[in-house]
Amino acid sequence: MNPVRTMATRSSQTSPPASSDASPRPVAVGLLGRGTVGSAFVDELNDVADAIAADLGFKPIISGVLRRSEGSFEEILERSEVIVELMGGQDPAREYVEKALRAGRHVVTANKQLVARYGEELSAIAYEQGVHFRYEAAIAGAVPIIHVLRSHLLVTHIDRVMGIVNGTTNFILEEMASQGSTFQDALARAQDLGYAEPDPTDDINGRDAAAKMVILARLAFGTPVDYNDVVYEGIEKIDPDDLVYAKEFGLALKLLGIAERRGKSLSIRVFPCFVSDKHPLASTHGPFNAVTIDAPAVEEITLAGPGAGARATASIVLNDVAAVSAGGPQRSYVSMGERLKVDNDGQRSCFYIHMIVTDQPGVLSSVADVLAQHEISVESAVQRGMGDQARLMLVTHECDEKACWEALLDISKLHVTRSDPRAIRVRTQD
Amino acid sequence: MNPVRTMATRSSQTSPPASSDASPRPVAVGLLGRGTVGSAFVDELNDVADAIAADLGFKPIISGVLRRSEGSFEEILERSEVIVELMGGQDPAREYVEKALRAGRHVVTANKQLVARYGEELSAIAYEQGVHFRYEAAIAGAVPIIHVLRSHLLVTHIDRVMGIVNGTTNFILEEMASQGSTFQDALARAQDLGYAEPDPTDDINGRDAAAKMVILARLAFGTPVDYNDVVYEGIEKIDPDDLVYAKEFGLALKLLGIAERRGKSLSIRVFPCFVSDKHPLASTHGPFNAVTIDAPAVEEITLAGPGAGARATASIVLNDVAAVSAGGPQRSYVSMGERLKVDNDGQRSCFYIHMIVTDQPGVLSSVADVLAQHEISVESAVQRGMGDQARLMLVTHECDEKACWEALLDISKLHVTRSDPRAIRVRTQD
Repeated sequence: MNPVRTMATRSSQTSPPASSDASPRPVAVGLLGRGTVGSAFVDELNDVADAIAADLGFKPIISGVLRRSEGSFEEILERSEVIVELMGGQDPAREYVEKALRAGRHVVTANKQLVARYGEELSAIAYEQGVHFRYEAAIAGAVPIIHVLRSHLLVTHIDRVMGIVNGTTNFILEEMASQGSTFQDALARAQDLGYAEPDPTDDINGRDAAAKMVILARLAFGTPVDYNDVVYEGIEKIDPDDLVYAKEFGLALKLLGIAERRGKSLSIRVFPCFVSDKHPLASTHGPFNAVTIDAPAVEEITLAGPGAGARATASIVLNDVAAVSAGGPQRSYVSMGERLKVDNDGQRSCFYIHMIVTDQPGVLSSVADVLAQHEISVESAVQRGMGDQARLMLVTHECDEKACWEALLDISKLHVTRSDPRAIRVRTQD
Repeated sequence: MNPVRTMATRSSQTSPPASSDASPRPVAVGLLGRGTVGSAFVDELNDVADAIAADLGFKPIISGVLRRSEGSFEEILERSEVIVELMGGQDPAREYVEKALRAGRHVVTANKQLVARYGEELSAIAYEQGVHFRYEAAIAGAVPIIHVLRSHLLVTHIDRVMGIVNGTTNFILEEMASQGSTFQDALARAQDLGYAEPDPTDDINGRDAAAKMVILARLAFGTPVDYNDVVYEGIEKIDPDDLVYAKEFGLALKLLGIAERRGKSLSIRVFPCFVSDKHPLASTHGPFNAVTIDAPAVEEITLAGPGAGARATASIVLNDVAAVSAGGPQRSYVSMGERLKVDNDGQRSCFYIHMIVTDQPGVLSSVADVLAQHEISVESAVQRGMGDQARLMLVTHECDEKACWEALLDISKLHVTRSDPRAIRVRTQD
């Protein structure tokens, strides 16, 4: 009943990569801005700096923090190898980033306004100076869309990038559709939950999504795109009734950003759009983001994940810092300071169970008794008559897997059982 | 009715990265194997080599092809900077890849068996030699799972990698559930469509998925994983009836691979498992692959796309070749030999249209008349009475967007119209 196998052929002896004896090279990281994301970045860096040192041979160290009221940019620049810009906004972020690049420092930022408006010239400066300018966390939080465009599909012709790149509006639209809330009520709830800023203007009018689509269009199509080239509509004027009516057609409303090739032209637009149940973006719920990339060579790739959050942003920024600090070929893997051992025993799962039983009173109870003896509880059961027999199907709550296999053996010995029970694991949400 | 805006603030003058005057550096690529994927790789490389040269400053050139009956590995190695291994199988692929790495050549492969069995030692050799060993195309075709683990989340603690990493079995299970086919019939159909190999043993018994999970577990948890550490079950013994019965519980069957952290241990398993409608992997259809990564810092990221295909594999291999050939900071974007101009006009879309009308005969026909005059046809319509008025909702077939806005103006002037019509774009499948 549990047809588990293991790989039959032994692999050759394997060995971990040789560890370097040299002490790790310190990488001085100057941090500009210490708001929510900046603080999360410091925490994340402190958590993993030793692991990075052990695995990658360099250790990121905060060399200085510039806050609104404290610190000198020039002093921090002087003693930093990498500048991490988490101030947000245009000024003085742009001036600092440009100065850092011209001074030959790598720069990592999560500032989408900065990248949307000045990304081309800042990238050009970085390229001239032979340093990195990275901004993976600037779009769609932890969703690896920039990575995929800059690396995974760098030399692949792309036809379209389409997605839900603003989690605030996605949450609001879903709230309006599911609760019948007005736009104002849904927005208030998004603010309560921290999914919307105190000033949500740029989210709800589509401007935030438009800035992101400018960046994605540049990368996907390798072409200069002006901040004014994108047309956008927001969701402020959506009538909540339409969200309810459109359910009759199986449609859900999303704020879509679409950058697509049209012959020798390119269109870049943001607008509210219904998508059908079967659309790859229909299953993007709450404040999540999702992007699809269409390319003739690879059909369609979909990337989805949380759209924002300080910790996610901080973690992705730190990965960018690691990338600019590393350089050269990578080790096969990074252990992050631990060595796990493989152990497949002691698993728990929900189960679907199927069996044929005699169709008489008390059958379900005797089956349930055996399950209970093995500490397995039933979530739902369906019994269907078939003449003097019946088909009994159950879904259990989570239980010990070994207990389930043992219970099935016991059930197969019951006098009411007419077939060996079959069981298949079940996962619901996670 | 069409509240389009453009970005109000002009961005500063932007300029493309300076193009290099020097002629592109040739990168000699030695190709081992010229089956379906090998041939697709040569085509893809020839298609984009000039664009790569113009954008990235190097031009990949095939320096030699080793076929079963033709060519000398040593001669090809001698004149190549990068070796692309697309022979498949263990031998002689392993010997050639090891020799190439020891000779200081970068190696790119799509050979999952090779990487699952010998990936650790080959990576260690590459690291010692200071060269790249890349295998992005070895798992889940175009889905960027290795990229994300090796780069996007390199220094992020990961708790679980779970996914559908075998498209053949996903197609077969879906076919069995939707058509009520037996396993044998569904397999035959998968073979007809080219989704299953002539010898599908390793796909259907779970071994192929197990090999992929070994590779993913190593990268996600940075820990040596032996090829024998994974336990796996296949789908050969699945009773098609269960797929039908389980629909009553809203469950669909998938072959899942799961590598997950459990305290100081790690479990790596492959088994058929029901997932509920709401599960992030439930919407993975046909031969597609999808992987979710759970990490405390970034919650859950989902990556999905086609699981295989010669052209997709070739394109991803070529991106790996570009990555090992490039080195150093990247330009802001890669134009792939073209310069697109932004043009947002002349778009087409389906539309949802809502209006309040008088509840009398002929209303739908007069609205449909106006739409027809603008060459817009109606896909579906719902009319609901509300006293002496009615709510009329339509979904149109694809039409010219401008024609739709004009039609709405005309409709608003009809004497039967009691409210300004509202329209929202609709996307169905793509």
